[in-house]
Amino acid sequence: MSDLLYPPSAQPVVAEAMRLLKSVREAPPLTHCITNAVVTGFTANVLLAVGAAPAMVDIVGESELFAGVANGLLINLGTPTPEQRAAGLEAAAGAAASATPWVLDPVAIGALPVRTAHAQRLVEQRPTAIRGNASEILALAGMSAGGRGVDATDSPDAAADAARMLATRYGSVVAVSGPIDLITDGERVFRIANGDELLTRVTGGGCALGAVMAAFLGAARSIHLSPLTAVTAATVYYTIAAERAAARATGPGSFAVAFLDELAATTPADLDSAARIEDETTARVEMDVS
Amino acid sequence: MSDLLYPPSAQPVVAEAMRLLKSVREAPPLTHCITNAVVTGFTANVLLAVGAAPAMVDIVGESELFAGVANGLLINLGTPTPEQRAAGLEAAAGAAASATPWVLDPVAIGALPVRTAHAQRLVEQRPTAIRGNASEILALAGMSAGGRGVDATDSPDAAADAARMLATRYGSVVAVSGPIDLITDGERVFRIANGDELLTRVTGGGCALGAVMAAFLGAARSIHLSPLTAVTAATVYYTIAAERAAARATGPGSFAVAFLDELAATTPADLDSAARIEDETTARVEMDVS
Amino acid sequence: MSDLLYPPSAQPVVAEAMRLLKSVREAPPLTHCITNAVVTGFTANVLLAVGAAPAMVDIVGESELFAGVANGLLINLGTPTPEQRAAGLEAAAGAAASATPWVLDPVAIGALPVRTAHAQRLVEQRPTAIRGNASEILALAGMSAGGRGVDATDSPDAAADAARMLATRYGSVVAVSGPIDLITDGERVFRIANGDELLTRVTGGGCALGAVMAAFLGAARSIHLSPLTAVTAATVYYTIAAERAAARATGPGSFAVAFLDELAATTPADLDSAARIEDETTARVEMDVS
Repeated sequence: MSDLLYPPSAQPVVAEAMRLLKSVREAPPLTHCITNAVVTGFTANVLLAVGAAPAMVDIVGESELFAGVANGLLINLGTPTPEQRAAGLEAAAGAAASATPWVLDPVAIGALPVRTAHAQRLVEQRPTAIRGNASEILALAGMSAGGRGVDATDSPDAAADAARMLATRYGSVVAVSGPIDLITDGERVFRIANGDELLTRVTGGGCALGAVMAAFLGAARSIHLSPLTAVTAATVYYTIAAERAAARATGPGSFAVAFLDELAATTPADLDSAARIEDETTARVEMDVS
Repeated sequence: MSDLLYPPSAQPVVAEAMRLLKSVREAPPLTHCITNAVVTGFTANVLLAVGAAPAMVDIVGESELFAGVANGLLINLGTPTPEQRAAGLEAAAGAAASATPWVLDPVAIGALPVRTAHAQRLVEQRPTAIRGNASEILALAGMSAGGRGVDATDSPDAAADAARMLATRYGSVVAVSGPIDLITDGERVFRIANGDELLTRVTGGGCALGAVMAAFLGAARSIHLSPLTAVTAATVYYTIAAERAAARATGPGSFAVAFLDELAATTPADLDSAARIEDETTARVEMDVS
Repeated sequence: MSDLLYPPSAQPVVAEAMRLLKSVREAPPLTHCITNAVVTGFTANVLLAVGAAPAMVDIVGESELFAGVANGLLINLGTPTPEQRAAGLEAAAGAAASATPWVLDPVAIGALPVRTAHAQRLVEQRPTAIRGNASEILALAGMSAGGRGVDATDSPDAAADAARMLATRYGSVVAVSGPIDLITDGERVFRIANGDELLTRVTGGGCALGAVMAAFLGAARSIHLSPLTAVTAATVYYTIAAERAAARATGPGSFAVAFLDELAATTPADLDSAARIEDETTARVEMDVS
């Protein structure tokens, strides 16, 4: 155990992450994505590399139906055309009717009015998970005017209170991305230190993680694991693959290529040996005791 | 001859494929694509690697005109927004008026109502070729409720009757993709065993083949080869490039990169040495004789 | 000095290009792109590799506001849906109100009526820079019916008069891409011989340069360099990175990957040692003198 990078308290969630990755590979979750035009190809390639089955169904008249048959759904607001906004509302309704788990990624809200209003409508539909950088999470919680685009201008810890509040109010798992990712269901808080700065130099590095969360949520539902576990597992797996890719890369171009290779190559056992995760709740308790 | 992977009966079509690839490189066919947002960049890169000239013109008011001046046209229904649906109907009319050969790729029809209805309208315009996986071809023929997205849930042979029926009814060449590709004009049937499973791990692996078929159809028209030859040649060439790329790849990311390199590098002579194609009609006749 | 590839007269602009690249890296310009669906992912990746901050905001209701806060703006007409056309007009107004420098890329105008009319409306808003191939620049100047798509069918020198005329009429810097790029503000003319043919085998090779110009224009404004310098610097830097990538590539797929790596790796000092640029104005004067 001494060579593990995570404390004993995080052992259960790592074990569940390993089971979940195995499950995704054995029974590829059909993952419905309504995502932005910039990253839609990369997102589909990430899902295929993971072992999931992507379906980018984002038009009116098909999205509600499809969200009902999919295993997981992502609604990402990166380029929210009127057609995509209407399709997103359809899909959220379809997901609700069939209890399909879904992820809301409120890209660049705060400064930009159309998507901010749209994100507000969607979050009221109680997404299973919400994923964003600190600026976006703060903006969604009404605690900030938002960042200046898709880059984070606040640190994940700065959004910890906002994340807990959103999680409690909407019954969602909230994931705040950054150098150390923070994930909470309003009670427990996981911090994940895996990843590499190169992931921020590839467009869709964050957006595609939302899709992987949707895939893992779909698989988790089948094997009775919690949304908190699914979102945490997706993040640990994804950021470990990023680390492995960075070790082989000579820049952002070769990193993106290696990342897809590593998403496909990373095994459950790799999670065990590389996860750097901390369960804040337990850590705090242990600190109180000692 | 003994080191060839195809029987003597397939020799004429391989020779024509070699001529056609040479022609594409010498006189790049202007290839008009109305395709889905997920794969549009990859598709353009595939066409550029092949040696064709891509043009992704998919708005109302330009598509009819452009289909008239292009050498070949692809209409792919992967993300059929209202604008793209209207542009697709325009383009089909423009192609008909100028006898521009065109390919219909009815992505994910069957389960999804908007695109299924749209595919029905388009197929009535008698596309030069129809390309899909077995589920899509069965759905277009009215013989199945469709798959669960873009992945094939039926084998190409399961769609052989549907393919022949569609070919006869609409005067189209029908190509069913799968581990063994099946191509028919309603009378002759070619089976192609080239390719690699990694092609299914890259988004657009199938969709971009539709664009290559449109390019080859354009070139074939200029040098008086049949649509059946053009679609078969495009498939043989494309899947041989995939095999060569797979031999160098360490996962889906590096495969996609190597695939573009190999599409550019594969020569007519490479087709001769690597084609694994069978002419079922002849094979059957030879079997009767022997 | 004898090992430099540019004449003494181009020394000032190369020195400014070096300063500008340094500035882009130190204070990443927020670069607002309204660009076509084919290249939007590649363009964002290029900007990230350069060191800029991309934001692909292309919907109505957000574009005017965002063009006001961005450091630079690109409006590219590659796939001009009605939504993008309206958003483009909004953005041009927002840029004008805040003096945000912006680039117009009139992709494939001339032959295609909707975008030709739209380009005409936009150019009247006096873009800071106009970027296109020779066919597009000729068409925008009303001197040609345009090319047959995004490929240049005319040489940059054939568009030199059109470029000077557009520059004078609209107060824009005009950049004509080709084997030798030509850049003019109506008085001075730079010719740049860097680059590689492989850049034309990757979709977005030209379009993404427009985005880099927008980023450099944003940075140039902050450090009080001229738009002519910004556009020239962007072109020199971009085409040098292309040369370096081509030296490592085995085809168009590996070239695109290496290009992103080299955009990130190329330093100001590399510009000094690799720039092949000529100041025609000075060259002509020197010729008169000698």
